[in-house]
Amino acid sequence: MPRIALGLEYDGTEFVGWQAQPAGRSIEVTLSGAVRSVADQPVSVHAAGRTDAGVHALQQVVHFDTNAERTRRQWLLGINSNLPPDVAVRWVREVPTDFDARRSALWRRYRYLILEQPSRPALARRRVWWLRDPLNCAAMTAAALQWLGEHDFSAFRAAGCQARTPIRRLLAVQISRTVRSQSTLVAVEFTANAFLQHMVRNLTGMLSEIGRGSVSPAAAADVLASRDRTQAGVTAPASGLCLVEVAYPERYQLPAVADDGFPW
Amino acid sequence: MPRIALGLEYDGTEFVGWQAQPAGRSIEVTLSGAVRSVADQPVSVHAAGRTDAGVHALQQVVHFDTNAERTRRQWLLGINSNLPPDVAVRWVREVPTDFDARRSALWRRYRYLILEQPSRPALARRRVWWLRDPLNCAAMTAAALQWLGEHDFSAFRAAGCQARTPIRRLLAVQISRTVRSQSTLVAVEFTANAFLQHMVRNLTGMLSEIGRGSVSPAAAADVLASRDRTQAGVTAPASGLCLVEVAYPERYQLPAVADDGFPW
Repeated sequence: MPRIALGLEYDGTEFVGWQAQPAGRSIEVTLSGAVRSVADQPVSVHAAGRTDAGVHALQQVVHFDTNAERTRRQWLLGINSNLPPDVAVRWVREVPTDFDARRSALWRRYRYLILEQPSRPALARRRVWWLRDPLNCAAMTAAALQWLGEHDFSAFRAAGCQARTPIRRLLAVQISRTVRSQSTLVAVEFTANAFLQHMVRNLTGMLSEIGRGSVSPAAAADVLASRDRTQAGVTAPASGLCLVEVAYPERYQLPAVADDGFPW
Repeated sequence: MPRIALGLEYDGTEFVGWQAQPAGRSIEVTLSGAVRSVADQPVSVHAAGRTDAGVHALQQVVHFDTNAERTRRQWLLGINSNLPPDVAVRWVREVPTDFDARRSALWRRYRYLILEQPSRPALARRRVWWLRDPLNCAAMTAAALQWLGEHDFSAFRAAGCQARTPIRRLLAVQISRTVRSQSTLVAVEFTANAFLQHMVRNLTGMLSEIGRGSVSPAAAADVLASRDRTQAGVTAPASGLCLVEVAYPERYQLPAVADDGFPW
């Protein structure tokens, strides 16, 4: 049966997450319903990353199998017209049947946005973690660099995480600061072969404590080595997190990512 | 009675606009309720500009009179904790009683955001007008410059507009383009002493037709001169519009605006 891949953008605020749940809107069920309407047959959709409740995606990658014959344009327009406003397909491609959105992925990149300003934001509230006090980004970067490489990330893993192994390879960390007159936007990006549940939010939570000065940068390596979740502190809220890119081997010829860096 | 001014940010998506209406959430009623909770007495709130349903503000300016004695910080934190997440106070100042948020304003600046990309956006949907085809910004700028100065803007005025006169002085127009790999963000900014109802949305609607090439830039002056609303074409949707700045005489010493240019 032919296999189709697509790039999916969503505002996670009003979803219970990617995965179907007994109650609440999931992206999985919302998308499979829209694809079903276009394919005129039931489909199972499979995502690169199962984002949690409230987490956004600029480009989630999804695959499904279908006998329905449609052009790229018919899939794109048809699925989009059956999706609610907070989810949209960005591109559609036919892929070889050995392509798997989750298993074929080489790495994933997540971006976490922190907005520093004296008072609560209104327009940005769905996309950032608001913090009143400025963060020391140099200390945060010094800390985060200690996490690079292949490690047991148990200290930053959610209690309910179902991954078979806590070993992950963190390939890159980048912390940037955009300073304006009354606000500063801090973007923390993590690239890894894969992530454990809540891993980015737990890493960012610890970085926020280091940025605030309540924890020393050196503690980052100690907590990682402890493999003890109770050492790592706060979990940053879901609203600031966005899956921005998933990379695949070139032979699948998926389109360049839609990460245009607008901080919606 | 002492007079208080404040800067207000809001996401207009889920409001019927500034003004109280028989049904639906208005910013006026929402804010006066929150101020009343802090002041322990009823208050009337008066805004610089009565934004329409769905229109946002980075900095609306509001004043109210009260006998309640509170510090700036007490007003700010108290009002914010009584406001819903889509409205927030950015600053609070005591002002002389001759200050009037609407009448003392020297000029207002609105920003209209257009997102050009091949497919529908999800994350940006509440903040932009999505257009599939690229706009010719040079043609749009050439057209908009013809509107500068003091004119009768009847051609760009909503049928229900209650202003006493259709004469307005357009002080500045700026059109900027941020080009990314798969999307382009066009920001159209209008600065005027004051605006008629729907004026920015009607001006932007005509600019979009000029940018698309279906109307010539020279028509901008002709339509203005016609003073005929039926000539001016489409009204751009409310979602793209944001009140970003209101300017006052220096002697009122209001804080610098919070326009940090993040396109939330």
